[in-house]
Amino acid sequence: MARLKLGMVGGGEGAFIGAVHRMAARLDDRWDLVAGNLSSTPEKAARSAAAIGLSRSYGSFEEMAREEAAREDGIDAVSIVTPNHMHVPVARAFLAAGIHVICDKPLTTDLETAQSFAGECSQYEAQFFLTHNYTGSPLVRQARQMVAEGMLGNIRLVHAEYLQDWLSRPADPDNVQAAWRTDPARTGGAGAIGDIGTHAYNLACFVAGETASHLAADLQSFVDGREVDDNANILLRFDSGARGSIFASQVATGTENGLKLRIHGDKGGLSWAQENPNELIYTPIGGVEQRITRGGAGAMSAAEAVTRIPAGHPEGYLEAFGTLYREVADHLADGKTGASDTVPGIAEAVAGMAFIDACQRSTKANAAWCDLSS
Amino acid sequence: MARLKLGMVGGGEGAFIGAVHRMAARLDDRWDLVAGNLSSTPEKAARSAAAIGLSRSYGSFEEMAREEAAREDGIDAVSIVTPNHMHVPVARAFLAAGIHVICDKPLTTDLETAQSFAGECSQYEAQFFLTHNYTGSPLVRQARQMVAEGMLGNIRLVHAEYLQDWLSRPADPDNVQAAWRTDPARTGGAGAIGDIGTHAYNLACFVAGETASHLAADLQSFVDGREVDDNANILLRFDSGARGSIFASQVATGTENGLKLRIHGDKGGLSWAQENPNELIYTPIGGVEQRITRGGAGAMSAAEAVTRIPAGHPEGYLEAFGTLYREVADHLADGKTGASDTVPGIAEAVAGMAFIDACQRSTKANAAWCDLSS
Amino acid sequence: MARLKLGMVGGGEGAFIGAVHRMAARLDDRWDLVAGNLSSTPEKAARSAAAIGLSRSYGSFEEMAREEAAREDGIDAVSIVTPNHMHVPVARAFLAAGIHVICDKPLTTDLETAQSFAGECSQYEAQFFLTHNYTGSPLVRQARQMVAEGMLGNIRLVHAEYLQDWLSRPADPDNVQAAWRTDPARTGGAGAIGDIGTHAYNLACFVAGETASHLAADLQSFVDGREVDDNANILLRFDSGARGSIFASQVATGTENGLKLRIHGDKGGLSWAQENPNELIYTPIGGVEQRITRGGAGAMSAAEAVTRIPAGHPEGYLEAFGTLYREVADHLADGKTGASDTVPGIAEAVAGMAFIDACQRSTKANAAWCDLSS
Amino acid sequence: MARLKLGMVGGGEGAFIGAVHRMAARLDDRWDLVAGNLSSTPEKAARSAAAIGLSRSYGSFEEMAREEAAREDGIDAVSIVTPNHMHVPVARAFLAAGIHVICDKPLTTDLETAQSFAGECSQYEAQFFLTHNYTGSPLVRQARQMVAEGMLGNIRLVHAEYLQDWLSRPADPDNVQAAWRTDPARTGGAGAIGDIGTHAYNLACFVAGETASHLAADLQSFVDGREVDDNANILLRFDSGARGSIFASQVATGTENGLKLRIHGDKGGLSWAQENPNELIYTPIGGVEQRITRGGAGAMSAAEAVTRIPAGHPEGYLEAFGTLYREVADHLADGKTGASDTVPGIAEAVAGMAFIDACQRSTKANAAWCDLSS
Repeated sequence: MARLKLGMVGGGEGAFIGAVHRMAARLDDRWDLVAGNLSSTPEKAARSAAAIGLSRSYGSFEEMAREEAAREDGIDAVSIVTPNHMHVPVARAFLAAGIHVICDKPLTTDLETAQSFAGECSQYEAQFFLTHNYTGSPLVRQARQMVAEGMLGNIRLVHAEYLQDWLSRPADPDNVQAAWRTDPARTGGAGAIGDIGTHAYNLACFVAGETASHLAADLQSFVDGREVDDNANILLRFDSGARGSIFASQVATGTENGLKLRIHGDKGGLSWAQENPNELIYTPIGGVEQRITRGGAGAMSAAEAVTRIPAGHPEGYLEAFGTLYREVADHLADGKTGASDTVPGIAEAVAGMAFIDACQRSTKANAAWCDLSS
Repeated sequence: MARLKLGMVGGGEGAFIGAVHRMAARLDDRWDLVAGNLSSTPEKAARSAAAIGLSRSYGSFEEMAREEAAREDGIDAVSIVTPNHMHVPVARAFLAAGIHVICDKPLTTDLETAQSFAGECSQYEAQFFLTHNYTGSPLVRQARQMVAEGMLGNIRLVHAEYLQDWLSRPADPDNVQAAWRTDPARTGGAGAIGDIGTHAYNLACFVAGETASHLAADLQSFVDGREVDDNANILLRFDSGARGSIFASQVATGTENGLKLRIHGDKGGLSWAQENPNELIYTPIGGVEQRITRGGAGAMSAAEAVTRIPAGHPEGYLEAFGTLYREVADHLADGKTGASDTVPGIAEAVAGMAFIDACQRSTKANAAWCDLSS
Repeated sequence: MARLKLGMVGGGEGAFIGAVHRMAARLDDRWDLVAGNLSSTPEKAARSAAAIGLSRSYGSFEEMAREEAAREDGIDAVSIVTPNHMHVPVARAFLAAGIHVICDKPLTTDLETAQSFAGECSQYEAQFFLTHNYTGSPLVRQARQMVAEGMLGNIRLVHAEYLQDWLSRPADPDNVQAAWRTDPARTGGAGAIGDIGTHAYNLACFVAGETASHLAADLQSFVDGREVDDNANILLRFDSGARGSIFASQVATGTENGLKLRIHGDKGGLSWAQENPNELIYTPIGGVEQRITRGGAGAMSAAEAVTRIPAGHPEGYLEAFGTLYREVADHLADGKTGASDTVPGIAEAVAGMAFIDACQRSTKANAAWCDLSS
Repeated sequence: MARLKLGMVGGGEGAFIGAVHRMAARLDDRWDLVAGNLSSTPEKAARSAAAIGLSRSYGSFEEMAREEAAREDGIDAVSIVTPNHMHVPVARAFLAAGIHVICDKPLTTDLETAQSFAGECSQYEAQFFLTHNYTGSPLVRQARQMVAEGMLGNIRLVHAEYLQDWLSRPADPDNVQAAWRTDPARTGGAGAIGDIGTHAYNLACFVAGETASHLAADLQSFVDGREVDDNANILLRFDSGARGSIFASQVATGTENGLKLRIHGDKGGLSWAQENPNELIYTPIGGVEQRITRGGAGAMSAAEAVTRIPAGHPEGYLEAFGTLYREVADHLADGKTGASDTVPGIAEAVAGMAFIDACQRSTKANAAWCDLSS
């Protein structure tokens, strides 16, 4: 199968997620990275490109969009891995140039920008994809299928949490990752809630098959002088009658990348934790707890579709991420338009911003319930 | 060491917790069960007493309190293991008769009764103890000691949960346990929140060393026709600045007796789960996660004091329960008065009722923050 | 149900297992401990008896057997919790006096003594029971039932291990437990293999439903100057064609009381670990792994029969031990004679000694296969 | 950094491990796959090449070796992913043509061939690498470093096991993977012992820092009609005085890819399991058990060197495999000759065959000890 041509904006020196996107894109051999504007200054961009053997390096994303659109062999899609505040300007430039966009989350810094950008997106022929990478994990797909097929019955409880501890102390100013994630100017004011809370919320909705209707949020900055939230305790309500919660924290000492999901319906319960993503715990009501493994006897079609290697051979973070890249490639190669069945797009991007916005509004109102649909 | 003489009210045919109290009381050989009013009708009481070889059986608790107080060899203390609404009347009768009380939780059906009874208690010479049995677990004691000694630094997050699924469906009317626990008349209107939520809250406070100041609660009845809550999602705030949560559910399909506690401070984090109570996970900030085992190299004095057998030989639910009985015996045998250092008493009993009351008030106010101290 | 009267030989000051037997005997209220010869010198025996409030204290076991047999209210059974070399002399005295014996394992110091004693036992009316306590664990019972009912099909592999690390260094001479366990005169020359290897072997056979026919053993003393084995790596063969292994070690650094059993048949596999005895992992061939919990939905009759409290409320080491005491009481109260269905007796006692003997013979022959039936 | 050019022999239609090697080679962007002889017939080879977009497809490995050696832009190295019996003929052709070889394990069908080929290897300038892929796992590297630095003290026990259940029943003749793995002609007579036993043995030696001197092996075919072993129970002795074991099974019902390693020294113990490879359990003697995570606070230099993403973001099977490819690329790009520090080579290849040979000899001699060095 022919490879598609990929470009990248962001992900140069000192960046973390750019290299992840590149490994993810390589894994299934569906993409060739051929062009980039890897950093915000031309010199740094050139140096970053040289370091990874990338020959088409641009000094600005605008130039890159223009030139790549003009080339016969220009890129099919661009990955955007900049800090949050640059996502929309870059995405707009490429979409307008007819180049598909694969964008890191959250979409942007505020809900208004998100909604306005979503309006624009409907005008573009080029498509927008958002990398909520954990939804690429085989057993997350299986969990979603099990819910959709009614194996859990009516959903009653949806508890998601994403706990880290790497910002438990004031951030080292030399830590590039910490610096921009705690800078309101570049994040839009959301800290943990934007960086990881959106993942937890997206995962919960992806599996449950519905977004929450209301939330009550208690955001907090525990570390002195921090200008963004570093902890969020959130209650959820769903139109279906389900209730739930999101905990997102970057000060939960002793945790690493603790994204977990538990869903309880009137016919069964599920639990999944991304730190050991190759197992899904399922208990039908009145039955025995089952440990469904990726690739094992209990794996269903949605999991099998994104499984590369047999049961007992662990796949991890990069593989789940790589699945999104493969699915975008399939989607584009097949000439599909509109939202992908599996890869989050602009709707999920806006839902994530609505979640952040509601969390911030609720917190200002002393954790009063806020409508998520507004 | 001489054994003390114990009586029991409740715990007859069809009861669960009475047998548990009896095993717990026997374990360390500090008590002889010698008298009882095991059921509410004289016939059933007599039959229940005969079934366990108990010779002094009374037809009513009032008679029992009176007669035992009058005997030379009367009981030193009585265990109260009736449904909630009978706790206070029975306790009052024995305390007034000069007999110590070991009472199941929650204290009663409503906060007002609790507060009024607490006032009475201060008048009695006989003492009141409450069996929040999980606090007898060695590694719960250790967790409390670690917090008290500052090993976690300033506490930021306190997350407790107690998840069960045995009431996921409408209760079988023949199930005595389910019947009274879902009957507002006998529980006072609290379902999961009274039966297990109070355990989770007590555990959180016992370890954290402080009670919450405010909570926002979203109580719910998922099962059609149920008149008490079967699920509670609760946010907490503490005067110290810590935040937290309590989840209590009896409809969380796939869980059994999932009482868990996680505490994160600015110097470290702890996690404990009662289903495997012989390990405590501790991570000092910037360090490696440690699995402290009961009786193992990391066990501290508070854990060692209540440990019976070596590391790797699991102690469980009954042992933790037995520890409370042993400690009450020690407390009484030593002639101590006032609150026990380790066994919950009237203050914790009222705190539990205040917690229930605040949860119910908050829920009525659409999960608004309620003051717990009122 | 009337309690039986129990005596004890051994278990005085500084002993570990005596107190365990006493707690185990108390748990289900089927025994009253009324007499003892708790230590080998009259003074120490008297002091030990006083410490636990035991009024009938004897200066020697011979006197105790004689006097108790003569009393109207004499003991029904005696627990023997001395070092190994004293088991048979004490047991013989009580059995000859018509008093049942509940004896710690292993039976004695050498196979010849064991076989000769077994011959005697068939002459006595009083009965002999051996406390392989782990076989009292509910999910061990369930595992045995599952094998017996063919749920695993033909057994192919039986792997048991019992790993500890408390003797990784030369034993502290003040540690009474370590002292006698590493003294060939009191153990009969077996170290780890006698103390814990026999437990692992008994557990394997108890569940598999057959004893091994041959073994090849590589015993070793790792610690300088130690006169008994502290590690044993053993291969097993069974007449059924199954193969297996036993590892027993007291120098496996990082382990505590790591008794584990795994059985694989052509229709399914099982795994159980005593440090968390409330779960049994079962996988039918071609199916999903199941976590069967004590008291949970998958619990079968053999487990339910010995379960005290509901799923999720952990039972542990003492509870399993207590089950043997309860079953001996039931067996005797029901007037049963001959081997118990559930509690190990003289046959298992001899099988354990045959196991030790074969391990020692095999080791001397450089781990050659030795017949276990000889 | 410039990419090296890679070829592949084997790995066409129906193959498993070829695709794994290709993903592994792609992950770190150090290789371009440019040529192949993916199957044993020219048509199938061409079809397989076309399926993965590989333009230089050869009809035979001899032709491929010759032509690639002759090209200016010929491959730097070839990956050999055929059944075992073809490894040496193919490797010889490429090494003789001056092309480096990255070969799957085990090296070949018998020890004699292995030793003779090892002799040849010393004559070639081109280098030979063997993909014992699990040794690329970060925490396996850490375990090795910890042993080498003396953190475990003198090693006493080395227990490795590799348990699967996918051959518990007679193999489906249409299952290509099962067919060749149970065919003596293509495996050389070794079943489980060659396919997975060699991995377990290599892992044990890699971490322990020494090969075993003697073993006693009990190989078995449980499935009727199977001509190769499907289970191996093996005892080990090391010159250092350490003892150990290897279990390898493909009939251990309920296991998936259960490769585990436990090492106990007189100063500490380690345990690692590849199904959740992101944690390493370490207990210093007398201390608390630690859970060292990949990328976490306890990670040491050897682990950090091969870690791509932060703690809590799981890496798995492909990542460990990819590390070997990266390290071979680094080794070659740096112009190094001789054995790699980290990637197994011809010495490990011969050690693996010596292990298989000794297992087969020992089994024929009824599990007598066999010398591994012969």
